[in-house]
Amino acid sequence: MNGKIIKAKDAFLHITDLALLRGFGIFDFCRTQNGRPLLLDRYLTRFFNSAKYVDLGIPFSKEYIKDTIYSLLQNNSFEESGIRMVMTGGYTENGYTPGEPNFFILIEKINFPGKPLYDNGIKLFFLEHQRELSHIKSINYLTAISIRNAISKAEAYDVLYHYNGNVLEVSRSNIFIVRDRNIITPIKNILPGITRSTVINLARDLFTVEEREIPVQELFQADEVFMTGTTKRVLPVIKIDDHQIGTGRPGPVTKKLIALYRDFENSSTVVPSTGDQA
Amino acid sequence: MNGKIIKAKDAFLHITDLALLRGFGIFDFCRTQNGRPLLLDRYLTRFFNSAKYVDLGIPFSKEYIKDTIYSLLQNNSFEESGIRMVMTGGYTENGYTPGEPNFFILIEKINFPGKPLYDNGIKLFFLEHQRELSHIKSINYLTAISIRNAISKAEAYDVLYHYNGNVLEVSRSNIFIVRDRNIITPIKNILPGITRSTVINLARDLFTVEEREIPVQELFQADEVFMTGTTKRVLPVIKIDDHQIGTGRPGPVTKKLIALYRDFENSSTVVPSTGDQA
Repeated sequence: MNGKIIKAKDAFLHITDLALLRGFGIFDFCRTQNGRPLLLDRYLTRFFNSAKYVDLGIPFSKEYIKDTIYSLLQNNSFEESGIRMVMTGGYTENGYTPGEPNFFILIEKINFPGKPLYDNGIKLFFLEHQRELSHIKSINYLTAISIRNAISKAEAYDVLYHYNGNVLEVSRSNIFIVRDRNIITPIKNILPGITRSTVINLARDLFTVEEREIPVQELFQADEVFMTGTTKRVLPVIKIDDHQIGTGRPGPVTKKLIALYRDFENSSTVVPSTGDQA
Repeated sequence: MNGKIIKAKDAFLHITDLALLRGFGIFDFCRTQNGRPLLLDRYLTRFFNSAKYVDLGIPFSKEYIKDTIYSLLQNNSFEESGIRMVMTGGYTENGYTPGEPNFFILIEKINFPGKPLYDNGIKLFFLEHQRELSHIKSINYLTAISIRNAISKAEAYDVLYHYNGNVLEVSRSNIFIVRDRNIITPIKNILPGITRSTVINLARDLFTVEEREIPVQELFQADEVFMTGTTKRVLPVIKIDDHQIGTGRPGPVTKKLIALYRDFENSSTVVPSTGDQA
């Protein structure tokens, strides 16, 4: 936190922090696979882009942040770790104007969706909303968290946003549809997910992938729907409100991508062999 | 903070607070006039409404909060005080789901706009945006604070939002226009300001007041424009981007309302005479 390694339980910020008073901050969240950070450089690039967009200077270099993450991972012993980088507007003197940013990296125990969710697919709650500054990763989740009880009551796993007649994204995941083995995913007014772009690249070897607007009607006519995210990987969606998608079971294209993504994760994090082992 | 009176400099929250990780919290802000809280009951009612809307339970009663505010004011010695009540989603265990809310009341030195701003009026920066959950007072000011440097560069005082062709509100104030001595103010997709409703009531004795949508074109044709807010009171607006309003000087209706509001503030906070003095 702000350049010092401390125990998570001792990490506090004063109440004049601008995230507390005005919800003003950005973050990013990546994770380990086989104990090693997955695609860390890409998450760092996005984090720096978010900071630039809200006019906050990150007081540390990418190299310093990477080195710090590696040493934090060594000091923790989770099987797999979530790596959360947060930067706020800092301590404000007048309750509104940013000060020097507060910056911290938190290593967390990570919770993945359970196997039954991959086997059976999940239901999404459908809501008209577009995230504010949707192309950057701000800390603003006001709408999604406000409706948490309505989501639970509907027995949905998460919320899918649509706006102006187009499908956008899940609260913390991207959305894809499959029609006649073509894969389609929104490109505008969404967060550019790292898992999203990885899955697009993997899919292109076997399928056609289109990045374009998806009208709500096309979503409901899809053969398959799935979502992607750092902790979600590729997760099948079989219901949106009361609309069943396709057969109501995870489809063949989704299953193929789940497998391709698992292979990618493991191949990306293999420890290279050293001279000693050769 | 959470039921204890502590020094402001000692008030810290852990980094797992949901305002820090997900910008999730509500607040309200009122102030003293002549050392006494102005319209405190109305601010408290709005604060409780905001909490209800985001499904957070306030762990203290209105009476407890009022009593606490009075004793905090006695423990501070600002000439006039800002009273900030904040409630967040509390400490989250998984980085997303609210815990028990964290609640604090902060007494602050208050900064009013200087006399030249009332005498000469101010310029606003015009931006297409509608606040998320605009009818409640959440801590989300992501857009307004992100563009702070563009606002400064334009030498504007604050940002005025419009959306779908209609004028909405200033980042932390309501907006009014005057046409042929009729006063008009937006009613939808705005925060229902306490100063706004007070000014409407005061104005109704002398003028016609309409609460309705204001198309952007009507704003630019207005004779006068002014904004209202807890610390702004009634503040004349004479320019929006490069559009001059009316004569480019604060107009007669605005000046009358500035005076009426000043009288109201002082009459509302007169200490009632006691038996001893009679």
